[in-house]
Amino acid sequence: MTKQFRTEIIAVGTELLLGQIANTNAQWMSEKLAAIGMNVFHHSVVGDNLQRVKEQFQHSKNRADVIIVTGGLGPTEDDLTREAFQKIVKRDIIEHRPSMEKIEAFYRKQKSKMTPNNRKQARVFTGADVIENNVGMAPGMIVSENDTTWIFLPGVPREMKQMMSDNVMPYLQQLTGESSVIKSTMLRFIGIGESQLEDELSDIIQNQSNPTIAPLAQSEGIAIRLTAKANTQEEATNLISKTKQQIQAKVGDHMYGADEQTIEENVFALLKAQNKHIGAAESLTGGMFTEKLIAVEGASKVCLGGLVCYDTNVKENVLHISPETIRQYGTVSDECAAEMSRNICTLLDSDIGISFTGAAGPDSVEGHPPGTVFIAVYDSSKVSIARKFTFQGSRQTIRKKATLKGFELLYNLLK
Amino acid sequence: MTKQFRTEIIAVGTELLLGQIANTNAQWMSEKLAAIGMNVFHHSVVGDNLQRVKEQFQHSKNRADVIIVTGGLGPTEDDLTREAFQKIVKRDIIEHRPSMEKIEAFYRKQKSKMTPNNRKQARVFTGADVIENNVGMAPGMIVSENDTTWIFLPGVPREMKQMMSDNVMPYLQQLTGESSVIKSTMLRFIGIGESQLEDELSDIIQNQSNPTIAPLAQSEGIAIRLTAKANTQEEATNLISKTKQQIQAKVGDHMYGADEQTIEENVFALLKAQNKHIGAAESLTGGMFTEKLIAVEGASKVCLGGLVCYDTNVKENVLHISPETIRQYGTVSDECAAEMSRNICTLLDSDIGISFTGAAGPDSVEGHPPGTVFIAVYDSSKVSIARKFTFQGSRQTIRKKATLKGFELLYNLLK
Repeated sequence: MTKQFRTEIIAVGTELLLGQIANTNAQWMSEKLAAIGMNVFHHSVVGDNLQRVKEQFQHSKNRADVIIVTGGLGPTEDDLTREAFQKIVKRDIIEHRPSMEKIEAFYRKQKSKMTPNNRKQARVFTGADVIENNVGMAPGMIVSENDTTWIFLPGVPREMKQMMSDNVMPYLQQLTGESSVIKSTMLRFIGIGESQLEDELSDIIQNQSNPTIAPLAQSEGIAIRLTAKANTQEEATNLISKTKQQIQAKVGDHMYGADEQTIEENVFALLKAQNKHIGAAESLTGGMFTEKLIAVEGASKVCLGGLVCYDTNVKENVLHISPETIRQYGTVSDECAAEMSRNICTLLDSDIGISFTGAAGPDSVEGHPPGTVFIAVYDSSKVSIARKFTFQGSRQTIRKKATLKGFELLYNLLK
Repeated sequence: MTKQFRTEIIAVGTELLLGQIANTNAQWMSEKLAAIGMNVFHHSVVGDNLQRVKEQFQHSKNRADVIIVTGGLGPTEDDLTREAFQKIVKRDIIEHRPSMEKIEAFYRKQKSKMTPNNRKQARVFTGADVIENNVGMAPGMIVSENDTTWIFLPGVPREMKQMMSDNVMPYLQQLTGESSVIKSTMLRFIGIGESQLEDELSDIIQNQSNPTIAPLAQSEGIAIRLTAKANTQEEATNLISKTKQQIQAKVGDHMYGADEQTIEENVFALLKAQNKHIGAAESLTGGMFTEKLIAVEGASKVCLGGLVCYDTNVKENVLHISPETIRQYGTVSDECAAEMSRNICTLLDSDIGISFTGAAGPDSVEGHPPGTVFIAVYDSSKVSIARKFTFQGSRQTIRKKATLKGFELLYNLLK
């Protein structure tokens, strides 16, 4: 029988209480903690006020065994987490040499002057397990005080996440002695809506409790989270694998990957495996497609570059779209998109060309209302595609949907 | 002198503690409450557990004057907000006829059978002000109990928001008798770090209470929020204006705008005012600069397009960088960046050219470690800039920092 640890997450920061940001840190951590069977009973948010942070710590100590505190470790006057904690426990604060050296090295490298308040970030409690910050300045800390475990982490999500994944989660798993295995995987889909997905899978979803099946609508398509609990890793893997197969049998055509995989990584992998280079001619998307592809590590192996031909003159003079095409069909047309996708191959000497042209809004373009988008894919060795799409939403949403659709078309072409 | 109401927002729902959703309700409400000068001192999240909800209510009652509770008013066994509240106050629960009729009408209209648990949603406390739910089932409630005002709202964001806007906000404005005016503005900075900014402004920050001065580190640079409280709109405006001048006198060189303005909107406005067109030649940034500029409405007036010349062949064959430059200095160099910025002007027929070349990581490029970036700006009517930068962070962070730095250079050149 493993001990149940009552867990609380405290976020320190007035910006949360003013509504400037949402407490997404608590969400992210809670999901991780749930996966190892920890019971999170409270989230608390308190502002940058010494007295109130102290009172919150005092109160939380009486109702939780593990308390994770984010924020208030930075260099400014407002950062009061250490001071508040010192008011409820007897711990000295000392300068952590390795952290201080890192901060100093950062400023040396930046060739900028380190202001004195930055020293504050290297201060830790005596007896604390110090957690190195690999992406920022202030280190984290684990402090065991009587029966309570306090974990202090920076509020910057990137820093908090790295420390949670690398240090805190392994520590907590050891602490709780959680013996049953929780395994979770995310299946990723494109080209299918949430309600259609739920509809197609309704039998499986209703008759299934381990793994649990949770569909999630995300900005980059739909995902399904499978979470299995078992006595061994192998058993959990088998449970997930079995359900994954059932899901694939129904909607496998739309499934492009798992876990943190993105559609652009998938397209990158397909291009690389097929030893093909791609170039993009982007009008309304303005470079978003190329930017996303180049964000993938090793992108140079598949992407030579791209042309943002936002202006008609650039389409004509650089991409050599024939004035006749533009006169007869306009720049927002099947014909122009198709020619763009062919010509970008010639210009960049690539195997595949993709093009985006349309009206992102707020104004219409050549009589086409915002949301009208033409996407073409030209593959020198296969058939070409040129299709019209109608997207809803803001200028930015339309541009994002068009980019995502481009990756979907490529994925379907290459897989 | 108006009374200061200490305000707390309590969200009831295990789904928040499991990390299935973020507490965006609290963010949304906090922003609204801040705008009418209410001091939100705590956000709390507690699960669907009778004992813990009761304890949370008990504790919050001792530290807050106004408590807004979201969630736990629905039809299921898990919805326990009413029951928990009854454990700390002596109030009977009765069925609210108008709400019950609405629920019954809904099911008649849907031609589906109303399950008995739906009756639960129409139950309200005796003596409560009932808030009609125009977009869902369960009504909200305002309950004054001794010196505490309790406001109960559904957890569904759409329902909560409608009740907040239509009923709760007017009620709270009346309750607080808030006659003084709160005015808030955000000053935006670029090219200066948070600690340097605080250091330069430490005198002003320490000796200032109205307006309050809150520096915030954001992904797109640093911001300072000024919040003034006064008897009249004019007085608040004057207070902010005076402090803004003091800040500008110290760090005005780095201030590029206010409120929701982004640096790219600012650069867009400067280009437009000066009737100048820009084109970008992007290597490691992969289109990110052009994408951000084209995200601004009306971008076609200043941005013709851009070239992503990720591959060296594209630099040579499309952008016509001389092979001699590449042989002698490499593609990651002052010289290559400068030539890229000139040549993109020629290629796109623009007035200004900006270029980005460097190593985004994880691999070195031509012996330059990740983070080494050269940015050049060529302005046919002014001096040109070509500078080396060293950025820290992941591949994506380095690319973002380079893009932001590009906008900073342009802003300084054009302003």
